[in-house]
Amino acid sequence: MTTSLPPDISATALERALEDFRGVVGAEHVLTAEEQTADFRDPFWHRDWDDYEAAAVVQPASVEEIQAIVRLANEHRVPLWTTSTGRNNGYGGSSPRVRGSVVVNLRRMNQVLEINEELGYAVVEPGVRWFDLYEAIQAGGHRLMLSCADLGWGSVVGNTLDHGATYLPYGVDMAAACGMEVVLADGELLRTGMGAMPGNQAWHTYKRGLGPTLDQLFMQSNFGIVTKMGVWLMPYPETYMPFWVRVPRDDDLATLVDTLRRLELDDTIRMVPQILNTVLFAAVLSRRTDWWDGDGPIPEPVIDKIAKQLEVGRWMMRAALYGDEVVVDHRFAKLKEAFERIPGCEVWGTKTKPEDAAELTHPAELIQAGVPNLGWNHMTGWYGGEESGGHVGFSPVAPLTGHDALAVRDLMRGLIEGRAELDYMGALIPINARSFIHVTMVIFDVANEQHCRGAYDTCKLLVREAAERGYGEYRAHLDFMDLAADQYSFGDHAYRRFVETIKDAVDPNGILAPGKQGIWPAGLRDQARR
Amino acid sequence: MTTSLPPDISATALERALEDFRGVVGAEHVLTAEEQTADFRDPFWHRDWDDYEAAAVVQPASVEEIQAIVRLANEHRVPLWTTSTGRNNGYGGSSPRVRGSVVVNLRRMNQVLEINEELGYAVVEPGVRWFDLYEAIQAGGHRLMLSCADLGWGSVVGNTLDHGATYLPYGVDMAAACGMEVVLADGELLRTGMGAMPGNQAWHTYKRGLGPTLDQLFMQSNFGIVTKMGVWLMPYPETYMPFWVRVPRDDDLATLVDTLRRLELDDTIRMVPQILNTVLFAAVLSRRTDWWDGDGPIPEPVIDKIAKQLEVGRWMMRAALYGDEVVVDHRFAKLKEAFERIPGCEVWGTKTKPEDAAELTHPAELIQAGVPNLGWNHMTGWYGGEESGGHVGFSPVAPLTGHDALAVRDLMRGLIEGRAELDYMGALIPINARSFIHVTMVIFDVANEQHCRGAYDTCKLLVREAAERGYGEYRAHLDFMDLAADQYSFGDHAYRRFVETIKDAVDPNGILAPGKQGIWPAGLRDQARR
Repeated sequence: MTTSLPPDISATALERALEDFRGVVGAEHVLTAEEQTADFRDPFWHRDWDDYEAAAVVQPASVEEIQAIVRLANEHRVPLWTTSTGRNNGYGGSSPRVRGSVVVNLRRMNQVLEINEELGYAVVEPGVRWFDLYEAIQAGGHRLMLSCADLGWGSVVGNTLDHGATYLPYGVDMAAACGMEVVLADGELLRTGMGAMPGNQAWHTYKRGLGPTLDQLFMQSNFGIVTKMGVWLMPYPETYMPFWVRVPRDDDLATLVDTLRRLELDDTIRMVPQILNTVLFAAVLSRRTDWWDGDGPIPEPVIDKIAKQLEVGRWMMRAALYGDEVVVDHRFAKLKEAFERIPGCEVWGTKTKPEDAAELTHPAELIQAGVPNLGWNHMTGWYGGEESGGHVGFSPVAPLTGHDALAVRDLMRGLIEGRAELDYMGALIPINARSFIHVTMVIFDVANEQHCRGAYDTCKLLVREAAERGYGEYRAHLDFMDLAADQYSFGDHAYRRFVETIKDAVDPNGILAPGKQGIWPAGLRDQARR
Repeated sequence: MTTSLPPDISATALERALEDFRGVVGAEHVLTAEEQTADFRDPFWHRDWDDYEAAAVVQPASVEEIQAIVRLANEHRVPLWTTSTGRNNGYGGSSPRVRGSVVVNLRRMNQVLEINEELGYAVVEPGVRWFDLYEAIQAGGHRLMLSCADLGWGSVVGNTLDHGATYLPYGVDMAAACGMEVVLADGELLRTGMGAMPGNQAWHTYKRGLGPTLDQLFMQSNFGIVTKMGVWLMPYPETYMPFWVRVPRDDDLATLVDTLRRLELDDTIRMVPQILNTVLFAAVLSRRTDWWDGDGPIPEPVIDKIAKQLEVGRWMMRAALYGDEVVVDHRFAKLKEAFERIPGCEVWGTKTKPEDAAELTHPAELIQAGVPNLGWNHMTGWYGGEESGGHVGFSPVAPLTGHDALAVRDLMRGLIEGRAELDYMGALIPINARSFIHVTMVIFDVANEQHCRGAYDTCKLLVREAAERGYGEYRAHLDFMDLAADQYSFGDHAYRRFVETIKDAVDPNGILAPGKQGIWPAGLRDQARR
């Protein structure tokens, strides 16, 4: 395979740019040959397709090196695509939207710069994984809990910048981040919020500054490269109590969701649960071949059989309580009573202490305690096994009502089973008391090209059908990023035009992550929308 | 007094613009004569000074009228300054930063567009006051509490856009707003978050969209005119319990703050308290002449006398609990025990129910129940009485530690008593568990020109001295907006340059609120910074 080149850049021009990058980071930190960059490809994109192939991967070790790379990229007009650890799996991994981009990967910037126990926050570089931050907290003997994502190998910063969910109380509304440092497209260094004042002590404690607050402008966008971020940590509560809610019938989802909303609105539950259907739980706990090897989606009776044998019901919710023991006791009794009004619903949980949480064995109970692990990743092997299992996430947002939960389920299930002939695997993630993200895990065998193509085509169908009903994606894979963004068309695409006006102003050469979330620089815009 | 004119605009040119505005909104909604615009002046700016005098006030009644005005302003190059109700008192009221701007005042757009009880939110226009929204909730029989500001005459939207504090649980981190509609500088209409998708149901339930979230970009800025906003409302808790914490010595502030931080971090207290010093409480409850009529600041023995007689201690905190009665009981017992470890500290409170809160008499207990009133405004008359009392807020942010609380107090008190010879009146507003805003109420007699000048000069001194110690303003009065913004100079003013690059791109004629929070359009930038 020849090297992928960026638009309008010759092989010689690219080589000149890479030579300059080598001068900044050292030759060993500019990866070009395929065997070196393999770890940075989207693992769930078919191996024979090169649509999102990077030209090279550059791994700087400092803010100054990033600034130098950005300045050189402007000179050479080479598009960059930033990844932190590069584990944005299901949405493109470390692959760039524009073929031939140079991936700026920040794994080497992996320092936990500060942990402040008194005020409950850490400051991290983008290469810091959930594993790393957890370990640093433990090593320092800090009694602080980290609201972490499902998979511990991900970057704290990277997950945050892509609006990724985390599950502890500070995961509600994705509210854990506070205060950033950012390298801009011209190589300048900006600090957000109170950090814009030299020596200000409230940078990571107060969420705003004087004037407009820019933190969210640097999320899901291509206006800068975030080099530092504050992340709030929760002091150990007296009691940690993971609990489970299981319902026997598919339509019980509606009552489950309505009950949950009331319990979140009245503060009985304050964290980010997950509500998974039978097949998704089966993927976490088993392989598809354990249950079914026929063509097409798993039939209803088999789903019922799985529900019974794995004891996961038709829907099961993972959740947890945190707080003083007397409060946790009251809340558990209250929520148990509320959920168990659903006929056949069962609720159970076990109290423990945060300091003992690492000894728990269920991956969900660890995640909800802020102990990062990789247990949830087992689901990826549902179709292809460990070697060639892949998934892509189709993830619309809806109000947290039973009505909307059934509507989204019916839409997703109908299209995935009926059109793509795949199993419907749904996870509702109530990100706050008022809305949920329906992560539709489209799981497939990456080694099977037809299978692979079908999965991505299905997602594109889902984007359109969901938007017609008023449900929009919270995040999108490279392959349908533009299509997803197209749906946000109010006022003749006023949002996109406004954001792209900003893009052209702050990155006139369009070198930072062109196409990210459908935001294109002027030079590539017409081509991208043709 | 002749009409103030905007920079580089003749009286004839202004009149042509006003004539066009009359064509849009009707002649009766373009106010020009002094007696008509008096209600829109900064009430605390000396009457003989015209630095922030508007040329006229235009009052549109619809989004379409705002769009038309903005387009005409571009044609005529007339700067606009948007106010909602225009009650931004202490920070400039309804006055524009640039003399001769046309104030676009939105009092006529006062519709509560929606109240959704199931999902707990309302959608309001910018002219809706706290009073109006509260009344609409009551009229609809909704069991929902509104996190409101201290003064009920203010605009829900206006307060939110200026980062104003509110005090119920949803006031923590100023988190109640969700989803906006905005008229841009070119007259286009944009919706933020999920609202960018036509017909999306999650606009006011999910805080983000696909791509960068713009809501905070439209706060404390001049990039658009917000015409609709979602605001979250909290379902009635079983129990509402306002409580008070009083400490006898000035230095008890440190332990009070450290104790509060721990109780907020462990979720015992979740709302936005206020910690007021003796003199500020005295201003709420009495007049200065009741205690002292000498020159210079009130002497220490008199402060102690006030503390005793009014039973407000040297510092007193207003706060409240919300929730199930058993949880409130547990939390009150816990916090009482924690605070009363401070020698001489007293803690008391009374349980009630949200549905009975309107019958409470203390303004703070009403505010914390979301019942808007004007009781807190009494403090403004400390020096000048009801007729000519004025105040300006100097409001730096600091981490929520006892150390920082004493440092900020000492700095403020030293300068205000020592240099300005005014009384030090401090209110700490812990906006979250990690930081507080120290609202320094500089109260003076507006009728006394020397007094007035002294107050504003003092604030400028405070801005500089606080910044040297790493404390920055969260909000600033027109008269020292630029100076406050100057302090955010990290990276050779990288923040300001980035924000002004956006300003030039999205508002090339610089017609929207030039100078707001120190953000200037290209055409006025050099002049403003000379």
